Amino acid sequence: MLIVQKFGGTSVGDLDRIQNVANRVSETKKNGNDVVVVVSAMSGETNKLIAYAEHFSKTPEKAEIDMLLSSGERVTASLLAIALTAMGHDAISMTGRRAGIVTDNSHTKARIEVINPAAMNSALKEGKIIVVAGFQGISLDGNVTTLGRGGSDLSAVAIAGAIGADLCEIYTDVSGIYTTDPRIEPKARKLNSISYDEMLELSSLGAKVLHSRSVELAKKLNVNLVTRTSFSNEEGTLITKEENIMEKPLVSGIALDKNQARVSLMGVKDRPGIASDIFTKLANKNVNIDMIIQNKAHDDEANIDFTVPVTDLNDAKEIVDMFIKSGEVKDASFNEKICKVSIVGVGMKSHTGVAAKAFSTMAAENININMISTSEIKVSMVIDEKYAELAVRSLHNAYELDK
Amino acid sequence: MLIVQKFGGTSVGDLDRIQNVANRVSETKKNGNDVVVVVSAMSGETNKLIAYAEHFSKTPEKAEIDMLLSSGERVTASLLAIALTAMGHDAISMTGRRAGIVTDNSHTKARIEVINPAAMNSALKEGKIIVVAGFQGISLDGNVTTLGRGGSDLSAVAIAGAIGADLCEIYTDVSGIYTTDPRIEPKARKLNSISYDEMLELSSLGAKVLHSRSVELAKKLNVNLVTRTSFSNEEGTLITKEENIMEKPLVSGIALDKNQARVSLMGVKDRPGIASDIFTKLANKNVNIDMIIQNKAHDDEANIDFTVPVTDLNDAKEIVDMFIKSGEVKDASFNEKICKVSIVGVGMKSHTGVAAKAFSTMAAENININMISTSEIKVSMVIDEKYAELAVRSLHNAYELDK
Repeated sequence: MLIVQKFGGTSVGDLDRIQNVANRVSETKKNGNDVVVVVSAMSGETNKLIAYAEHFSKTPEKAEIDMLLSSGERVTASLLAIALTAMGHDAISMTGRRAGIVTDNSHTKARIEVINPAAMNSALKEGKIIVVAGFQGISLDGNVTTLGRGGSDLSAVAIAGAIGADLCEIYTDVSGIYTTDPRIEPKARKLNSISYDEMLELSSLGAKVLHSRSVELAKKLNVNLVTRTSFSNEEGTLITKEENIMEKPLVSGIALDKNQARVSLMGVKDRPGIASDIFTKLANKNVNIDMIIQNKAHDDEANIDFTVPVTDLNDAKEIVDMFIKSGEVKDASFNEKICKVSIVGVGMKSHTGVAAKAFSTMAAENININMISTSEIKVSMVIDEKYAELAVRSLHNAYELDK
Repeated sequence: MLIVQKFGGTSVGDLDRIQNVANRVSETKKNGNDVVVVVSAMSGETNKLIAYAEHFSKTPEKAEIDMLLSSGERVTASLLAIALTAMGHDAISMTGRRAGIVTDNSHTKARIEVINPAAMNSALKEGKIIVVAGFQGISLDGNVTTLGRGGSDLSAVAIAGAIGADLCEIYTDVSGIYTTDPRIEPKARKLNSISYDEMLELSSLGAKVLHSRSVELAKKLNVNLVTRTSFSNEEGTLITKEENIMEKPLVSGIALDKNQARVSLMGVKDRPGIASDIFTKLANKNVNIDMIIQNKAHDDEANIDFTVPVTDLNDAKEIVDMFIKSGEVKDASFNEKICKVSIVGVGMKSHTGVAAKAFSTMAAENININMISTSEIKVSMVIDEKYAELAVRSLHNAYELDK
């Protein structure tokens, strides 16, 4: 097999851990696989460099930040190549540029345009283990760029796609994807496999293992992604296309998002375009709207409820105040003490009754549902924050996710 | 003027010192000059990275060492660019590759093949201050290389040549070139200017301010080199071509080299080619021969004396032992308690009596001269090590170098 293995900052946090990573890569190679390794900077390194930059400027140039930060992954990559060579392997490190990762010009959050895998392919043909400095690329006009949050994962997925790898393993300090947060429900079970779409719902719903950009790219490039831990040999979770998953459970997992707030607008003037006005102004201020409910209160007035991330609440309040001052909205209330519980599963597509079971489970626990939104593979409910853990455990039990 | 300024590791050793460098560069720019800055890694950084590499391997791959070490200069370059931007300048950092520095493939001691200054020239045209990561380049086949000892000085000189700079200033912790080591002769005087050839003699003779590779390159490219300190505004020493130096002193400086040992071969068989045999074998073992004296003892025997660096003495002994065993050399003695004192000056070319004054000065101090060698601009004498400082002070006085 041709395998891409990506190791994050904590996995390469010190020299002993780099040796551990070398041992794992060595094992994979000895088992007859070809291996491309993608590494992050040693943990702490990036923050140190950012602190250095901020010593000189609160707003350092983004191109300079890219130049600065991209040094961290180079150090890890060359050290790992040296460790592998010392173990008798033929290993070579590559910068993002050398690996052929070409990006656009958006410094500190560049998008990969294309990967030219010629150098990697010829090194693989010679039987070499390649260690690529993750998180970085080079723009078409020759400047060093970095890929932003989750950038090394993105490098790994993009490389796996470009060289046609059978597997792309993302090593973190978490052993895989669980049916729900094990800190809330100790009976949570690690999933063997999950579809891209389910993973996208889960990661956008607050499961932090993988950045959704990486999952989206894996889906687009049809890369089999595995997330697992570098601290044990425990098997991880395979994220793949739906067709590859043999038994499709009705529900794969329960996600909880506590970082939502509810905004309730009362007495909204019922003129054409008023909702559009409000939400355009919110979008212009980069306020991220999730769920929206509108219902008529009187003939010429409506109530509109929506949820926003807690971090966007102040911006939302400013916009709402404008509409109250102009008289188009009578009053508003804001509630941070809510949470969103979501049920995710591709099986929902072909089964009815999944949402109904969620509602009856909530009813049985006397939990009031404030808002509901659904998609083909997801049911989300907004409830009082104090019921968050109870709701997760009840749903986990109702759908028998511990089995 | 177009000025290249190079700052070594101690000059950029911490964030405050980088700010000092930024202040100096800013001043130079504000005085109406265009500036390209070349920086080394922060002092200590390179040694830390080498220690990391040696944790994994006593003989790390040279290509990996280049990948590893080249990260250090990138950090300094981007930090300095950030500091300059924060001061209101338009500054940009460049890697060796971005600056167009193309080298051969000799990792860890690459030679610069060519510089493509297109990117630098266009940034200069836009009025930008360019900060180049020194010590590094890129090979024709796209791998990161480093230039070996004195590499950042070399980067600076090569860049100055490629962009046609009026001046290349090398900032160190020493304020310039002195008539002799001020720790030996407190009356030593800093030179305002010195020719390339004199500087080459002085640096090969143990004056450590500049690596001779950089002086050779400056001579070849006709770059006006200034060595000065970054810790004060004191003027430095200009190293330039002989024609540019107005008043040519008879003697510019006295150099002292204590790291020499003398090898005396007695009763060497006087057959044709014997000296060639001995010195070829020494050369094959990379023993660096400096001075050689041969004189006939008997009709069929000669004595040969030569000097080698103390570090090469053991290798020399091995070769000599071979010739003693074969019977072609009767006996040998080795003396580490010698030193070499040299008088350097372009004025010697047109003046007689310089060497004679050296010999009479030694005689007046009752110092015995063991060996002598001369070039157009240099007289070197091997004497007992215990007279080293006395000889330097006497010669400094005899040639009135304190005036």
